[in-house]
Amino acid sequence: MENKSILVVGSVALDTVKTPFGEAKEVLGGSATFFSYAASFFANVNLVGVVGEDFPPSCIELLRSRNIDLRGLEIKKGKTFRWSGVYKNDLNERDTLSLELNVFEDFHPLLPPGLRQCPYVFLANIDPELHLEVIEQIKHQRLIVCDTMNIWIENKRQALLKTLRLIDILFLNDSEARQLTRESNLIKAGKEILKFGPKSVIIKKGEHGVMYISPDSFFTIPAYPLESVCDPTGAGDSFAGGFLGYLAKEGLDEKKIRLALVYATIIASFTVEDFSLERLKHVTDKEIEKRFQEFKNMTNFA
Amino acid sequence: MENKSILVVGSVALDTVKTPFGEAKEVLGGSATFFSYAASFFANVNLVGVVGEDFPPSCIELLRSRNIDLRGLEIKKGKTFRWSGVYKNDLNERDTLSLELNVFEDFHPLLPPGLRQCPYVFLANIDPELHLEVIEQIKHQRLIVCDTMNIWIENKRQALLKTLRLIDILFLNDSEARQLTRESNLIKAGKEILKFGPKSVIIKKGEHGVMYISPDSFFTIPAYPLESVCDPTGAGDSFAGGFLGYLAKEGLDEKKIRLALVYATIIASFTVEDFSLERLKHVTDKEIEKRFQEFKNMTNFA
Repeated sequence: MENKSILVVGSVALDTVKTPFGEAKEVLGGSATFFSYAASFFANVNLVGVVGEDFPPSCIELLRSRNIDLRGLEIKKGKTFRWSGVYKNDLNERDTLSLELNVFEDFHPLLPPGLRQCPYVFLANIDPELHLEVIEQIKHQRLIVCDTMNIWIENKRQALLKTLRLIDILFLNDSEARQLTRESNLIKAGKEILKFGPKSVIIKKGEHGVMYISPDSFFTIPAYPLESVCDPTGAGDSFAGGFLGYLAKEGLDEKKIRLALVYATIIASFTVEDFSLERLKHVTDKEIEKRFQEFKNMTNFA
Repeated sequence: MENKSILVVGSVALDTVKTPFGEAKEVLGGSATFFSYAASFFANVNLVGVVGEDFPPSCIELLRSRNIDLRGLEIKKGKTFRWSGVYKNDLNERDTLSLELNVFEDFHPLLPPGLRQCPYVFLANIDPELHLEVIEQIKHQRLIVCDTMNIWIENKRQALLKTLRLIDILFLNDSEARQLTRESNLIKAGKEILKFGPKSVIIKKGEHGVMYISPDSFFTIPAYPLESVCDPTGAGDSFAGGFLGYLAKEGLDEKKIRLALVYATIIASFTVEDFSLERLKHVTDKEIEKRFQEFKNMTNFA
């Protein structure tokens, strides 16, 4: 049978988050976590990361309940990566209150041999030097997708540029696209990013939707409109998970890429409706399909 | 023959605009001007407004060349309304440097009898007390559309609320929707606005597109992606012109409203590519149709 599984390497964390709508303490978070859970709606996921001995067994159980393969999740002596942040009123800005890398500080991904040929790879939002370590260990991939953020663009630009030459699709948000290229127009910024190496770039604009730019195609959709957003943490990671999960399941042509971006939008819309994975935990395939149809209807002018 | 003409009441001005991409001095501007020119691609427009004796004959000629009926354009002793502004680097913010109302200060719209039964009316972005004066003079309309802005929401709230009870569609931008309703979520803000009276509301988000909200429908599209924006002045007014022009030509059902919003998007995308009406002056029907097809392609995932 064709191998359609996904490998994700990234952070697994315990988050403490405060938003205008409430607070959640020491809840499951991390880029690889949100990605894996989201992708698991569509495909088999293998998670590579590290947690400490204090990582709650209930979190392990939750990921296992989605058939997420945890062979690559190292449990190390020490404490799990912790992040704490607070969102401002409009939820578009957040301040990090504390960041304890703990066991993540010395993390160097070592892929179990069985995972090195996963056809789909997601290099979640971690240090691009770790991305390069992963890329050295893998082979025969169909698609390598990478996410990044402001601190790596600022502090690890050379490693990031090296990574960009080796991947297929880059995810980043609008301000990061501007920061990486020093170009304020997003379309131009996207085209500049293609010159760094990726075959396409996906620029996330949060509540304003997303743009997909490749040398011969441009696609853009709004976000799914929500009346109540509780916590944006994990929106980008679960967006990427929905995207790559859908592609792993359905294939890689342009039409599928567009549909994958719509499903990514839908999955992320559920994520932000509650803290951590609380909303995603209860989402059914039927609800995803319902929201997909609604989205189709509310954007259709044919 | 069925009367499909549009009446617009608003400002006609001479603008001096500075953007990071250049400067234009004493060029044709004003809400009714941009609206009329944009709507003239689709329908017959009657403009009601006032200018001074210094208003350049070439501007009159330009509007006449688009078959815009200027019976209602009063030429009064004194100087034409002048506005001067400067846009910041990302073009999303602007500062007004000077505002000379001149002949506009005592403007009270008096509709020539032939225009009182125009089926489509656009109350452009002027004092809502003037909107009410127009509404008292008109009858048997098919559709009354109104635009407003922050200064009227702040200083003329009661007149604006009275206007909202008498119109069909309200145009405003995202920050104004939040200001009017004191609700930060745009979907909720849109629904709140419907309670004030309009049958639907169109929330403009600039480079992020537009949302249409009615009691039983929701529609949203991104903006047309542009690599170079020169001057955003008049984008909202020409958006409204494209919208109402298309509806006047094509009719009022939901499908046509959606298409009208797409054509509005296309027309506004041309407006911002140059100062004043410079780009719109040279736009052909073929170019509009080409951009429409491109937009359809870049948003399609069916």
